[in-house]
Amino acid sequence: MQTVIIGSGNVAYHLAKAFMLNAVPVAQIFGRNEQELEKISEKLQIPYSTKKLSDADLYIICVSDQSVGEVSRLIIRKDCLVAHTSGSLPIDILAGEYRKSSLYPLQTFSKSKKLDYQHIPFFIEAENEEDRKLLSDMASAISKNVMESTYEKRKYIHLTAVFACNFVNHLFSRAKEISDSQKIPFDYFLPLIDETVGKIHEIDPKYAQTGPAVRNDKRILEMHEELLEDESLEIYKTMNHSIQKLYEL
Amino acid sequence: MQTVIIGSGNVAYHLAKAFMLNAVPVAQIFGRNEQELEKISEKLQIPYSTKKLSDADLYIICVSDQSVGEVSRLIIRKDCLVAHTSGSLPIDILAGEYRKSSLYPLQTFSKSKKLDYQHIPFFIEAENEEDRKLLSDMASAISKNVMESTYEKRKYIHLTAVFACNFVNHLFSRAKEISDSQKIPFDYFLPLIDETVGKIHEIDPKYAQTGPAVRNDKRILEMHEELLEDESLEIYKTMNHSIQKLYEL
Repeated sequence: MQTVIIGSGNVAYHLAKAFMLNAVPVAQIFGRNEQELEKISEKLQIPYSTKKLSDADLYIICVSDQSVGEVSRLIIRKDCLVAHTSGSLPIDILAGEYRKSSLYPLQTFSKSKKLDYQHIPFFIEAENEEDRKLLSDMASAISKNVMESTYEKRKYIHLTAVFACNFVNHLFSRAKEISDSQKIPFDYFLPLIDETVGKIHEIDPKYAQTGPAVRNDKRILEMHEELLEDESLEIYKTMNHSIQKLYEL
Repeated sequence: MQTVIIGSGNVAYHLAKAFMLNAVPVAQIFGRNEQELEKISEKLQIPYSTKKLSDADLYIICVSDQSVGEVSRLIIRKDCLVAHTSGSLPIDILAGEYRKSSLYPLQTFSKSKKLDYQHIPFFIEAENEEDRKLLSDMASAISKNVMESTYEKRKYIHLTAVFACNFVNHLFSRAKEISDSQKIPFDYFLPLIDETVGKIHEIDPKYAQTGPAVRNDKRILEMHEELLEDESLEIYKTMNHSIQKLYEL
């Protein structure tokens, strides 16, 4: 079976790498950014092109949500399966006469980080059982956690990830702003952060909540508000309000 | 040197345990909750009392912020050092004629979790150099990260921890609510969460931000808002606003 990956960003690179590491050959990487393609091609020993898309049985589109529709039009072959990798798009965004599908890896990718692909969940959607099985077999070569999902479910998966990952990272940014302002190294907080995150591997986060809001410690809540301003103050108020609502304080 | 720990909660237990594990003897654990004291006493082989506070050179008060002042009055001896363990109180909350100090462990404690004490930062404040050295030596027996701090600095340390730990945990709670609503196991998100947190051991979180807000992806931002309500919607809006302000979008 011939597989082509379209795109030259982090998802394209990591997916291609994971396939190659697990004896799933990738026939070509196709994209617009020649410089990036050349780098990936060299690292992973996969041919690339910016001009001619190879004939393949499976095309995996790893480009930004905005470009998926446009890029999907480049595939003119009919007897093939096309998968996008977005958590936020239906499969009928794919605008060709081929079979449509989605292969959504639930992970945040950056080129510089090594990833443990085995534990990255893959969510699969396809139009028929055969295609579902094909994608499922491929993803299972990389990962232990391969599951089916609908578009509707994918939206909520993505939204959960925004809370648990994007927003969490932003809290780290705002926390670092506060510690930087006092010349306290942010590294001092890493054990605390690791402990906080380690806990939810064992306990439901709802039962792991600590801090002044869940204790309803008004003195500290007021003192903290006086130390904050602008967006950080808004976050402080919104989060405390939400904590107190959750625990009915 | 005789050391007494006052309190029977998580901080008292973990501090006593860390001292005992590192050959710093604790002469007594004192408190009101006999049941808890008995448990700690049995586990750590330290005598306890609910009635008679032993004579000691150092008393470490590990009780809730609200009780520190009241509890500190129980110590009538003058020639001794008393430390509270709060991140949010000045040392003159201690209401006796003894020498006053603070020994603040920057960590979230729960009795059931094993902790790597070595990497827990301890922040120390005392009235004179000798007491600072005494506390610093004791804390250094447990931890590699022992530092001085003022009350003012402690307030910001605590506030940073609220953002990086308490609020992060609450985001996990709200994220789990979303995944639960779709019957998606929250465990699927743990690799993503670990990756997100692993990153900030290497990169400034400001440079690790991903997600629809930093990409200014209005389609997804609007779609997500339609899936949310109440506190989660408020969090969604507040966090996105803060992200867009930080990156000047």
